[in-house]
Amino acid sequence: MQLTEFSATNLPIVEQEIAQFLMEYTTDETLKESMLYSINAGGKRIRPLLLLAATNSFGETLTTPMYQVAGALEMVHTYSLIHDDLPAMDNDDLRRGKPTNHKVFGEAIAILAGDGLLTGAFQLISLAQLEPLKKLLLIQQLASSSGTQGMVAGQTADIIGEKQELTIEELAFVHERKTGRLIRYALLAGGVLANQPEEVLLCLQKLAGHLGLAFQIRDDLLDVVSTTEELGKTAGKDAQEGKNTYPRLLGIEKTYEALANEIQQAKELVTQLEKDVLVFEGELLRQIIKQFDIEK
Amino acid sequence: MQLTEFSATNLPIVEQEIAQFLMEYTTDETLKESMLYSINAGGKRIRPLLLLAATNSFGETLTTPMYQVAGALEMVHTYSLIHDDLPAMDNDDLRRGKPTNHKVFGEAIAILAGDGLLTGAFQLISLAQLEPLKKLLLIQQLASSSGTQGMVAGQTADIIGEKQELTIEELAFVHERKTGRLIRYALLAGGVLANQPEEVLLCLQKLAGHLGLAFQIRDDLLDVVSTTEELGKTAGKDAQEGKNTYPRLLGIEKTYEALANEIQQAKELVTQLEKDVLVFEGELLRQIIKQFDIEK
Repeated sequence: MQLTEFSATNLPIVEQEIAQFLMEYTTDETLKESMLYSINAGGKRIRPLLLLAATNSFGETLTTPMYQVAGALEMVHTYSLIHDDLPAMDNDDLRRGKPTNHKVFGEAIAILAGDGLLTGAFQLISLAQLEPLKKLLLIQQLASSSGTQGMVAGQTADIIGEKQELTIEELAFVHERKTGRLIRYALLAGGVLANQPEEVLLCLQKLAGHLGLAFQIRDDLLDVVSTTEELGKTAGKDAQEGKNTYPRLLGIEKTYEALANEIQQAKELVTQLEKDVLVFEGELLRQIIKQFDIEK
Repeated sequence: MQLTEFSATNLPIVEQEIAQFLMEYTTDETLKESMLYSINAGGKRIRPLLLLAATNSFGETLTTPMYQVAGALEMVHTYSLIHDDLPAMDNDDLRRGKPTNHKVFGEAIAILAGDGLLTGAFQLISLAQLEPLKKLLLIQQLASSSGTQGMVAGQTADIIGEKQELTIEELAFVHERKTGRLIRYALLAGGVLANQPEEVLLCLQKLAGHLGLAFQIRDDLLDVVSTTEELGKTAGKDAQEGKNTYPRLLGIEKTYEALANEIQQAKELVTQLEKDVLVFEGELLRQIIKQFDIEK
């Protein structure tokens, strides 16, 4: 199946599951509006896409609980963007080409919308029609990926690191947590939902590790080589703020090389899965990996 | 058993479980320090106390997973205080007699510490040695109590309500969510951990409803009748900020009456549990309820 068709068919269902949950399980209208504003601000939906593509690659028919887990993951990602954009954090006015949440609803509501989305993610998975043990694993992994060992730890290290120059290893450590762990969760959850055994889950996570790095390197590169209009957020902001980025630490040429290297390794792991797993069709994942690349 | 002895024996174990979890599951030192600062700032630990007292009242021996669920509840409460104290929210400099989290660690780290504690609460329960179905129920109820139908919704309504005068019913609605729902969770979880049937869980939640209101009425009263030194936070702040409070809407005399009424109804439900449940000893809960009262 073509990725564009897969996305067009499945991502609206994820968005619908999120909206339905927020409509049904939120008592306060302003809070609901604020959470839906950020959810509906768009974005590439790369995490739910990866999750569903992985599940689908193992020949699984996609069902409501799978869309709900994908939705929960996107809710966690969206909460992190809302909090990250706050004046006390990255102080961003634009996100996905639109005013950030706190610019529209004020800081207090933006903080609460983030808290609500995070809490709601766990609620949504806990309510899904899945085997109890599978739900618990998905909840536990989502918490460890997004919490104090994962994304929140990465955000903290990123903020503290802003004040000093990092080595390329330290930068990779920050990114592995800040963005890598949720991408890893996407592929892991996709494999769990497709009832895959431990060794396949490990291979998926390895693949996700390369994808996560590619994602961040690409993001850093785009900040340098794109315009604000192309990005939908302020371009050149990283350099302006003296942020630790790959282009800053490696130079642009070597950054392109590093990206190509991660892409290559990710592709090889898809090929390996095709060899090792009886029912596995790597085409969708291969197309997604291609999207992480940048033509020089 | 005497409440003071019960507290002195059991609350340090809850604190130890929280600290152990945060030490083991946090990769970033500053984040760890910030979360532990607010956890260790003390407070009455009324929520874990209620949870453990309820479980104990049904004759259950307290075990590690029970302390962990109590710890998760206190972590959610603590995250809400950290976010609530932020300049964009209540803008408080003092909490429990100490500088608030963002005063010590800065706003960015305070936001992340809150996010980390919230996420960690779900992680801690998901890791506890309990039957899967029990864990899922405890996770689901914690999410609904603290999320967009519960505490977060109450905080939002409170912030929006600050700009207008509420009726006493609207105020009760805000408080039922802002503080009531976590107190309700404490007794519900206590009952779940003691394997109580549906009708007992309902009675516990009814009891908690009265306790929650008593708690808020008492809090409002103390703000009027205490000094900053007695409170450990700035006294008279509610009136100064034109907040909707019971004394403001009812007058002090009728506020004392409302408090006495909630206390009385809570006590009656303890008596009812003693009648209805074969193994139930209401003494501990009765002593806790007494602590919610104020001598005129």
